[in-house]
Amino acid sequence: MSETYVHGYHARENERLQDQAGTLVDLLHADTSYPSGSAVLEAGCGVGAQTVTLAQRSPDARFTSVDVSADSLAEAQRTTDAAGLTNVQFQHADIFALPFAPESFDHVFVCFVLEHLSRPVEALAILSRLLRPAGTMTVIEGDHGSAYFHPDSGAARKAIQCQVELQRLAGGNALIGRQLYPLMVEAGLEAVQVSPRMVYVDSSRPDLVDGFTRKTFTAMIEGVRKSAIAAGITDPQTFDAGVRDLHRTAEADGVFCYTFFKGVGEKWRRVDYGFEQTLFPRSLSHTR
Amino acid sequence: MSETYVHGYHARENERLQDQAGTLVDLLHADTSYPSGSAVLEAGCGVGAQTVTLAQRSPDARFTSVDVSADSLAEAQRTTDAAGLTNVQFQHADIFALPFAPESFDHVFVCFVLEHLSRPVEALAILSRLLRPAGTMTVIEGDHGSAYFHPDSGAARKAIQCQVELQRLAGGNALIGRQLYPLMVEAGLEAVQVSPRMVYVDSSRPDLVDGFTRKTFTAMIEGVRKSAIAAGITDPQTFDAGVRDLHRTAEADGVFCYTFFKGVGEKWRRVDYGFEQTLFPRSLSHTR
Repeated sequence: MSETYVHGYHARENERLQDQAGTLVDLLHADTSYPSGSAVLEAGCGVGAQTVTLAQRSPDARFTSVDVSADSLAEAQRTTDAAGLTNVQFQHADIFALPFAPESFDHVFVCFVLEHLSRPVEALAILSRLLRPAGTMTVIEGDHGSAYFHPDSGAARKAIQCQVELQRLAGGNALIGRQLYPLMVEAGLEAVQVSPRMVYVDSSRPDLVDGFTRKTFTAMIEGVRKSAIAAGITDPQTFDAGVRDLHRTAEADGVFCYTFFKGVGEKWRRVDYGFEQTLFPRSLSHTR
Repeated sequence: MSETYVHGYHARENERLQDQAGTLVDLLHADTSYPSGSAVLEAGCGVGAQTVTLAQRSPDARFTSVDVSADSLAEAQRTTDAAGLTNVQFQHADIFALPFAPESFDHVFVCFVLEHLSRPVEALAILSRLLRPAGTMTVIEGDHGSAYFHPDSGAARKAIQCQVELQRLAGGNALIGRQLYPLMVEAGLEAVQVSPRMVYVDSSRPDLVDGFTRKTFTAMIEGVRKSAIAAGITDPQTFDAGVRDLHRTAEADGVFCYTFFKGVGEKWRRVDYGFEQTLFPRSLSHTR
């Protein structure tokens, strides 16, 4: 992750990421657990928002969680210590220069990372080399173009677009969720299955109104105010009107929709033909 | 339904609506079935695209399916006859002037109808009066603002916007799906639960690429070409570029997303206090 981040390095931001994992944890992670004894690489763990969930759900798997930020790793270590977890090792490393031998891991997990990278397919291909054959790669990303709401508001859409534009200027892609399938296939993963995880919020779910609409999504957009104005992408009046309209969607007759995407792929299986070992896609192997 | 329709009255359109019901039937209807003997009103059955599914899934319920178009009803009758269904009666009627006594039905079902109405809350309130206390109202609507895709394309978004604008000019609302919760609550329904039904399409699902991206959504947008150009909303070049880009999302690395919304609400229960009968919301009744 030798790339510039739009978000991820501030205390309030850390709190937001924890809130996000707290309210969305089942939606995003309920179907991820790893077998006893398996070695799992979490690439780009940040402050450990997902690490705790992962490690708690697979108590007998061993996690190696890496991040390019030493400060984030220190925070992640504190968080997993506080949770009493002993199956996570943290390591300071860049995704594009990882200190691991090929085929060192049974599984790789990547969450809210590709959105920050200008070369997401290359990152996936590098991570894939660290997987043993038939190992799995799990990727989770959001997509800010999936946000829509009632009452609809052009100002709110413009405020969201500020975050998209800043992330683009930093080399990332805030609309990457919808692209998981083609990105994973291009990186050489097999049997890729992508499933959307839609967060639908109306006032019958006050926990989500507060935890997602206000404290996760709107808070994230509010967080780019200064940068967006400094970058000349917006002006204070326009931006503030947009944020007001996002808060408006959290009122009794408001509705907010956002979708995360989760993809799972498999590394090519090694097939033994007696004289030689050959790697080829599973989709071909069963036709021989 | 004394309103102008943007779509619904042509043979090719009928075929598209049937295709739509064919590929989406489980997503939209798998959780709808009515008990033996119940009387169900289908308001706005059109050409019977949903009627067949409804009646097959609840063979011992009795359906009364009404529509404002006699031509559509004739087509719907042919379709249900061909399916061998005997539990559906068709009746020519306008939602805003229905020939039924109050509390005549156990359940009401409304699918792809509110999007065409300029007074959707009034329609729901009228239908609610036909429900017996504790009867249910089921409403399904799409939302064209929920469509996003890869590769992203401003031209494709403009082409979709033509349909949204035409529907608005006709008094309808192509973005109504997200509003189901507040609309149903405003109409006086109780215990309203809305669930989104997202259609996610990538090339691992060729049935959906063809059945949904191409033959349902893109075909619907293509269908407004003439009207949109005649109304001065677009020009042929811009529109055709948008449609090309929608077809582009159906290629091997393309992705298409769309969300339908399904809401179920309940009519106020009648509570007997000895001297008088009072209607009030269930949410209050159990606190007394």
